[in-house]
Amino acid sequence: MSQQFDVLVIGGGPGGYVAAIRAAQLGFKVACCESNPYADPKGQPRLGGTCLNVGCIPSKALLHTSHLFEEAGHSFAEQGITVGTPKIDVAKMIARKANIVTQLTQGIAGLFKKNKVTFLAGHGSFVGQGAAGWQVQVGEETVEAKQVIIATGSTARHLPNVPVDNEIVCDNIGALEMGAVPKSLAVIGAGVIGLEMGSVWRRLGAQVTVLEAMPDFLAAADQDVAKEAQKIFTKQGLAFNFGVKIGDIKVSKKGVSIAYTDKDGKAQKLEADRLVVSIGRIPNTQGLGADKVGLKLNERGMVEVDGHCKTNLPGVWAIGDVVRGPMLAHKAMEEGVAVAEIMAGQAGHINFDLIPWVIYTDPEIAWVGKTEQQLKAEGVAYKAGKIPFMANGRALGAGNAKGFVKMLADANSDRILGVHIIGPNASELIGEAVVAMEFGAASEDLARICHAHPTLSEVVHEAALACDKRPLHF
Amino acid sequence: MSQQFDVLVIGGGPGGYVAAIRAAQLGFKVACCESNPYADPKGQPRLGGTCLNVGCIPSKALLHTSHLFEEAGHSFAEQGITVGTPKIDVAKMIARKANIVTQLTQGIAGLFKKNKVTFLAGHGSFVGQGAAGWQVQVGEETVEAKQVIIATGSTARHLPNVPVDNEIVCDNIGALEMGAVPKSLAVIGAGVIGLEMGSVWRRLGAQVTVLEAMPDFLAAADQDVAKEAQKIFTKQGLAFNFGVKIGDIKVSKKGVSIAYTDKDGKAQKLEADRLVVSIGRIPNTQGLGADKVGLKLNERGMVEVDGHCKTNLPGVWAIGDVVRGPMLAHKAMEEGVAVAEIMAGQAGHINFDLIPWVIYTDPEIAWVGKTEQQLKAEGVAYKAGKIPFMANGRALGAGNAKGFVKMLADANSDRILGVHIIGPNASELIGEAVVAMEFGAASEDLARICHAHPTLSEVVHEAALACDKRPLHF
Repeated sequence: MSQQFDVLVIGGGPGGYVAAIRAAQLGFKVACCESNPYADPKGQPRLGGTCLNVGCIPSKALLHTSHLFEEAGHSFAEQGITVGTPKIDVAKMIARKANIVTQLTQGIAGLFKKNKVTFLAGHGSFVGQGAAGWQVQVGEETVEAKQVIIATGSTARHLPNVPVDNEIVCDNIGALEMGAVPKSLAVIGAGVIGLEMGSVWRRLGAQVTVLEAMPDFLAAADQDVAKEAQKIFTKQGLAFNFGVKIGDIKVSKKGVSIAYTDKDGKAQKLEADRLVVSIGRIPNTQGLGADKVGLKLNERGMVEVDGHCKTNLPGVWAIGDVVRGPMLAHKAMEEGVAVAEIMAGQAGHINFDLIPWVIYTDPEIAWVGKTEQQLKAEGVAYKAGKIPFMANGRALGAGNAKGFVKMLADANSDRILGVHIIGPNASELIGEAVVAMEFGAASEDLARICHAHPTLSEVVHEAALACDKRPLHF
Repeated sequence: MSQQFDVLVIGGGPGGYVAAIRAAQLGFKVACCESNPYADPKGQPRLGGTCLNVGCIPSKALLHTSHLFEEAGHSFAEQGITVGTPKIDVAKMIARKANIVTQLTQGIAGLFKKNKVTFLAGHGSFVGQGAAGWQVQVGEETVEAKQVIIATGSTARHLPNVPVDNEIVCDNIGALEMGAVPKSLAVIGAGVIGLEMGSVWRRLGAQVTVLEAMPDFLAAADQDVAKEAQKIFTKQGLAFNFGVKIGDIKVSKKGVSIAYTDKDGKAQKLEADRLVVSIGRIPNTQGLGADKVGLKLNERGMVEVDGHCKTNLPGVWAIGDVVRGPMLAHKAMEEGVAVAEIMAGQAGHINFDLIPWVIYTDPEIAWVGKTEQQLKAEGVAYKAGKIPFMANGRALGAGNAKGFVKMLADANSDRILGVHIIGPNASELIGEAVVAMEFGAASEDLARICHAHPTLSEVVHEAALACDKRPLHF
């Protein structure tokens, strides 16, 4: 007889493993299947998904090392630290990153044991429906589960006719695994992954050129932030070309030659040793057996769900990158918790309006809530408070005082509608903004809350004061 | 005729300059006097007080440089960054620090101009009371003000019979200005200043020994945090001796010889090239002319005030280090704003229960609210959630995963009562805890708020989940 579970989670990424753990905590008999070995030396399937194996976590490790490398080369001297010309051992940097990934993926396996989640190695695919629930083939065996959570994630979108070999032409996977610093690197797509990976290899010495089809930079971000970011990144040495149309790409063993039309319609050519393709991600629904059970997908291949992650099939849920909404690990985790709690009869609410965004460039970019252009488009009367990090002692002490905090509040109620940060540690500073906004805080509330001195969070405080035109330090 | 003001602020430190700016914003005619030139090359009085000139800000600059120096020597290799043996040019490090201080102190002068605060160079001392208000001598002139805010701050406490020359025997001022890294450094007093300055010079190569009269380490902190801190700092190379009784100290041009009795009553001797004395601070009320006007001081020389910073004299207020409460710049600023607003007929509330504490060691230490030992002493039923940074991807990526977040919540209401952090970036992470607690958050509230991944703030999130025994990542 096939194994039977209360809940089967298909996919062991951040959405999936969190859903599995939470469901198990709530008393369900839970299994989670995963087939992707990523870089496992024995080829065994690994937990953690794209995020942990070839995404958020390894990129942060490389960003950290490359940041220190750049500090050593650029800011040490003015601080009185002499070290000679720094050299990078790429293999060692990559090995350290791999160790961190291994440690964390084993950690999730440990969490599964602790929480009594059964791990099933294998690709999950719907087969049909039986008396005991949904039948899902996992590798060689068929398991049955009363409820199924689809958390299959996404895969990098590739360019048509340009195969990714992750040697010369890389997606997120190859961009994290280069064997040496390329002399020149082309990046197609100026989104989060392109910017983060472009930053890593630029800091280590590559000449990086970014091609972007959209006319504007970071269209989803507040445009004040996007402008500041473009200015700073350009000064750092990233070369940007917006509004381009990519033409023929020739790949050889020595590199790539990219023909493109620039924003003025001129034919251009970019030669580079390597290419990173970061033009978005595709939801993983191929091989899921959606057709076998009548699971509804939308025209973009995503699983259709409502605001509570319910699909069109009873007892089948979907979360994370495979459904609507931003492809962010923490959004997937929130959905995973919510679905598990709804299955247990709890409320399971997800506040999609207050999911923070982060880009781990230097300076970092983070925001939550509405951008100024959104408020204008919606006709909302608002006020803004904007304070540069240049006025902040902690930022100056750390030699990292670029950027600003911009707070947007309702002109009438004073309720905070959006907080946009470009600056040191933006990823951590956004936390207090999310908490404040979850409590429906007015800008005056944040202005009246004591902020430790000297901290970067004082800039958030001052931005709140500036909404009322009474900053104390600017 | 003497100059007349609505408000005179005596002292240009964080409490004073903020009070002056806020009062001016509210429409008062405001002056602020300051006599201390600190390190000004022309000997002109400088704004910013101890904090900006010889405290929080310069120490953060040195902590940053010495942290990078230590990273270069210790963590670079494992990350694949090769540099020669790092050398420190102390003069250059100090010069950079001085530049930051100058930039910020000039910034405050600029803020005074922008907000129309009159700066008066000179020591302020009460003379009497006239028809136009309080008469205060400032340098050569006497000014009159309807209301006076005393913000005279504090000065390092010295050891009896051991004069501070800031060459061999240093207080906070000399500890920030050493001409070279001492081979050996003695620190008397294991408080914030002793730990921060001890850390700076240890990282740069000094053999640092800390002598502390109290039997326990960081008695004001949660004792879990204090224990973890002592373990980590000891491993870093700080040598601690608690429960000592300091005896004779002999000072020569070559160093100090400190006789002390250890906790077991044994006579000991510590020889060191330099000594930092960090045994607390004394409120600055000498020379204030308190007796001329009958201003009430307490037996420790502090100005007596109520919860709203009112002294015994009508129209005379006192804030910051010169009054009760913790000697923290942000506490002084809060009081400065509150007094200005009360003078303007507003509410001007200070929530003394939610003033965060920070120690900028590595890892940093920060907390807000009650410690576990306080809750026990008060007989409050509580629950605790404690999560190590070792389980956090961002911390591992940054190679800085020591420490933990500990959250304490009421066992019945679930209201958060205290948050205690020792770990990377604790100074910034505490911000979200303060905001949550100001809104009376339950641990469940924080547990249900989306935290960006991968960030250190996820450890705060997990600590909240752990209060309900359902952490997802531990």
